[in-house]
Amino acid sequence: MSGSAPRFGRAAVIGTGLVGSSLLRVMRREKLADELVGCARRAETRARILELGIVDRAVEDPAEAVAGADLIVVAIHLGGYAGLAEAIGPHLKAGAIVTDVGSAKQVAIAALGPPLPDGVHLVPGHPIAGTEFSGPDAGFAELFEDRWCILTPPDGTDPAAVETVAALWRAAGSEIEIMDPLHHDLVLAMTSHLPHLIAYTIVGTATELEEDVQAEVVKFSAGGFRDFTRIAATKPDFWRDVFLTNREAVLEMLDRFTEDLSALRRAVRRSDADAIMARLARTQQVRKDVIALGQDTEWRR
Amino acid sequence: MSGSAPRFGRAAVIGTGLVGSSLLRVMRREKLADELVGCARRAETRARILELGIVDRAVEDPAEAVAGADLIVVAIHLGGYAGLAEAIGPHLKAGAIVTDVGSAKQVAIAALGPPLPDGVHLVPGHPIAGTEFSGPDAGFAELFEDRWCILTPPDGTDPAAVETVAALWRAAGSEIEIMDPLHHDLVLAMTSHLPHLIAYTIVGTATELEEDVQAEVVKFSAGGFRDFTRIAATKPDFWRDVFLTNREAVLEMLDRFTEDLSALRRAVRRSDADAIMARLARTQQVRKDVIALGQDTEWRR
Repeated sequence: MSGSAPRFGRAAVIGTGLVGSSLLRVMRREKLADELVGCARRAETRARILELGIVDRAVEDPAEAVAGADLIVVAIHLGGYAGLAEAIGPHLKAGAIVTDVGSAKQVAIAALGPPLPDGVHLVPGHPIAGTEFSGPDAGFAELFEDRWCILTPPDGTDPAAVETVAALWRAAGSEIEIMDPLHHDLVLAMTSHLPHLIAYTIVGTATELEEDVQAEVVKFSAGGFRDFTRIAATKPDFWRDVFLTNREAVLEMLDRFTEDLSALRRAVRRSDADAIMARLARTQQVRKDVIALGQDTEWRR
Repeated sequence: MSGSAPRFGRAAVIGTGLVGSSLLRVMRREKLADELVGCARRAETRARILELGIVDRAVEDPAEAVAGADLIVVAIHLGGYAGLAEAIGPHLKAGAIVTDVGSAKQVAIAALGPPLPDGVHLVPGHPIAGTEFSGPDAGFAELFEDRWCILTPPDGTDPAAVETVAALWRAAGSEIEIMDPLHHDLVLAMTSHLPHLIAYTIVGTATELEEDVQAEVVKFSAGGFRDFTRIAATKPDFWRDVFLTNREAVLEMLDRFTEDLSALRRAVRRSDADAIMARLARTQQVRKDVIALGQDTEWRR
């Protein structure tokens, strides 16, 4: 059924923040489900998603949300996966598809997989899309357009279920990549988790400068620092969970980075112009590759 | 003469890359000089700036370029300052103003100041503006609009000369900040030099990954890594000179960053969720300040 949009009887989205509410908007716009159920802990959020018209029903209890659902999208922080899976496991209907949007896939599979009953399909996913904002009002249907969505189905997953989830993301405008979960976690540790860990650190370092220097760091942030504040703008509890759940890969990439940073520091300390140059020059090809693959456009500060 | 554009008989710009050629375009558009002289080492560059119509004369010899000039703008890499100052010193006319656009100001003053004869005014400057491109074709007159230009006149500099250089940058659309050179170097080490050093390092780290991982790092770079390739896109010889010339301040900020990175690494390794959260949460106010000061706008990835 490649190329045609999927159609669900009931679809439940657990967690209606930026990503969950954006996907609900897509499913609404593309008429992908007869009934859209949103599950949110806070009464205020439930009232808001009803008001926005992006769900037909808003419920507090995940077990109630998934009852009778053909598709369940887990869009909460990684730290809540295990508890959620225990809560919804017994209430899933046979043949249902469970997918998620989390940034670490080995842990997603470990947490979500075991509590699921036989006959329920787990197709973990990770849309590479975001903004610095959160909550149901921050979402928009175009969030996933021209973005990658990586799916990491465990060995033996029903290919029809994988294709259904792929078709869902294609309806959102995304391009699909199927990847091994371990490989995903390693690649994303480098492309996303380490950059965020470093950006949060450097912005944190700036907060401990003397007050007069700190004010001017903000004022003159266009020199490069601004871009780090942007990367470090997402809500911290999201990244705490990512660092904890993809810990091994994050530490591995961090250690490689730290080695390289030490080498560059040594070259600067020794005023070794050639060694500095050799290290800096390595980066030019990567930037060209990023532009060539359409992952970024020309830029000015 | 605040508010009115300066007017020079002859203005010479030494180095006609991104910044130098952009300033020449401003001076041409605003008719700030009777004669615009561009100084470039390469014959090809000299031919090009004449062809672009942004200079009246293109010369190879800096001594020839500055002869009879009322304003001299040094827009070459910091590493070339000392040699240039020796070459032009004897040829400067009394009352001439020498300014520059370099990213480190203590070293700019140390290199440019002593060889200048009495009666020549040194007003070091640093426009906080750039793109990832270089060369005379990359320049454009709007580069400095709504950007800061920091001036760091040494104690005792003639206020009229400072005001003339300030008026030049206001004509380019910039806002002026007067700063102590040492303070400038410390602030910029944090806002610009350290971010670039780190960005070059992480992009370099990615170039040493196994080939299959490396290809996917580029493919999925929108997750954060892309922004680092952007920061690390400038020509490496430029940053080599910055790191070498502002070495003390860069090492100082780098050591503070490294301490903070070690603390966060330890928290991740120990799976200490509270400690991770405490470190990540420090960054939220800084981002709000950056937005509030108009140094960035909302952003999505």
